[in-house]
Amino acid sequence: MSERLPDPSSDPFPQALSLAETVDFLDAAFPQMAAGGKTYHLVAVGPGFARMRMDHHERHLRPGGTVSGPSMMALADYALYAAILASLGPVALAVTTSLNVNFLRKPGPHGLLGTARLLKLGRRLAVGEVGITGPDGADLVCHATGTYAIPPERPARG
Amino acid sequence: MSERLPDPSSDPFPQALSLAETVDFLDAAFPQMAAGGKTYHLVAVGPGFARMRMDHHERHLRPGGTVSGPSMMALADYALYAAILASLGPVALAVTTSLNVNFLRKPGPHGLLGTARLLKLGRRLAVGEVGITGPDGADLVCHATGTYAIPPERPARG
Amino acid sequence: MSERLPDPSSDPFPQALSLAETVDFLDAAFPQMAAGGKTYHLVAVGPGFARMRMDHHERHLRPGGTVSGPSMMALADYALYAAILASLGPVALAVTTSLNVNFLRKPGPHGLLGTARLLKLGRRLAVGEVGITGPDGADLVCHATGTYAIPPERPARG
Amino acid sequence: MSERLPDPSSDPFPQALSLAETVDFLDAAFPQMAAGGKTYHLVAVGPGFARMRMDHHERHLRPGGTVSGPSMMALADYALYAAILASLGPVALAVTTSLNVNFLRKPGPHGLLGTARLLKLGRRLAVGEVGITGPDGADLVCHATGTYAIPPERPARG
Repeated sequence: MSERLPDPSSDPFPQALSLAETVDFLDAAFPQMAAGGKTYHLVAVGPGFARMRMDHHERHLRPGGTVSGPSMMALADYALYAAILASLGPVALAVTTSLNVNFLRKPGPHGLLGTARLLKLGRRLAVGEVGITGPDGADLVCHATGTYAIPPERPARG
Repeated sequence: MSERLPDPSSDPFPQALSLAETVDFLDAAFPQMAAGGKTYHLVAVGPGFARMRMDHHERHLRPGGTVSGPSMMALADYALYAAILASLGPVALAVTTSLNVNFLRKPGPHGLLGTARLLKLGRRLAVGEVGITGPDGADLVCHATGTYAIPPERPARG
Repeated sequence: MSERLPDPSSDPFPQALSLAETVDFLDAAFPQMAAGGKTYHLVAVGPGFARMRMDHHERHLRPGGTVSGPSMMALADYALYAAILASLGPVALAVTTSLNVNFLRKPGPHGLLGTARLLKLGRRLAVGEVGITGPDGADLVCHATGTYAIPPERPARG
Repeated sequence: MSERLPDPSSDPFPQALSLAETVDFLDAAFPQMAAGGKTYHLVAVGPGFARMRMDHHERHLRPGGTVSGPSMMALADYALYAAILASLGPVALAVTTSLNVNFLRKPGPHGLLGTARLLKLGRRLAVGEVGITGPDGADLVCHATGTYAIPPERPARG
């Protein structure tokens, strides 16, 4: 065992959507993420995994040029949502039930990267964590864990 | 003892700023809270206490007309910040170190009210909770707790 | 509106069990809560509400006589569990899915009281908060919020 | 960049104590961790890192043989504390200010391993995360993040 945290599960997570499919779904379902100009960009997905970039944009800034807390919370929530979506597909729309955010350092005047990985993908609840770093993936500025309710499967229609 | 949660302390919290003074400070220090039109309005402060209204505005909505999670997280953070500011005055600028948010119910198509009260106001850390309700103060839709670092007092200048 | 946090809901919570019934159920279901001598005592329940006392006992202490963090976390978890149990009855056994705890002040050398109230009692999730105080209900030393999964109702047996 | 979460910092954490020194300090400072027989064992430390084993013991069990939530919360808190202690040395005694715990899966009837890594080690606050797994490091059953206040350095005496 290394000094990294363990992998969440010996059961690998599934992957239901490609990056392009996940982007298309997010763009259609959350048009207001792009209100005032698109600043959140999904850049990678995998089984139980998503990475999202947030541009450096006036809308996300606090005086002094640092990125605001609510903008980082939104990035964490979107990245976790994308990880669940890519893993489960668009059948069931997950709903955020809780988000716990630790602000670690003041971000510099640049875009940020949110890297989300799921810790659990159950039938009713998904739990994941997100690390937010500078654009090169170094310097962790924020860490969040989130819980999402997965609606009961709808009976097959027909 | 009633069935309400206990008051945080037998030591009452101080109040350093009036409502008008707290509003003036927030407007000057956080102009971007009003970017695209002012939608967050501080409506009351007291010792260890603040209440903030968020207008129903397209910018805060998810498809279907419900208020987005990040907009509620911003309301919780602003209301707690205002409670600390009103209690301590603008001497020391508090910094959010963590926020834990539980989303309880889907808000209806209307503005929201964030009611913040401090649980602790120490020399180095302040902790508080926020309940977010409909505009009449009924129907709790979101609950948050937040922790804020209070910078060391600056030595008096002479 | 007063300066208290709002009540969680205009829909009152139900109450399924009396205090004596809730105590009996806890004693039978969690005998290990009393291992080494019973130190947790449920003292009140109501709709969406429970209050539990934790005795001052060597088992709960840190050097210097202060109560340990894990003992307070256990008190918070037990009190929330009791509030759900009293409200829903023993039909469905709730499972803790998350607990967020803020330690506010060092408790004195005495027993503690945990006062829990539910914020939400849904079909699948219950959320509540707990304030931990000294035995007289003053001096908040710890605050926690917890989330509990409520298993799907079992089909009636026949 | 891999699909792992990023390392917390490009600045490596320090290491002030060896494993044997950290164990000796914990044994002396927290004798009650061993009350009723020692069940928590520190097995590794490194810069910003600690791993602690919790034995399978009747004291930690819920009916049915599963490990209780409070026992896992104690393991998370102890492992994070050990990571801070090994990194900073025993000069300043850290105090837990918050702990956020997600219970992911029901642990099996065996001991557990808590793997803690720091996310931030500031002058006043340390933040870290813990993954709790089975004894072989697989199957993540619980994840926690914790915040610790680091007391101001005491002035040199003499």
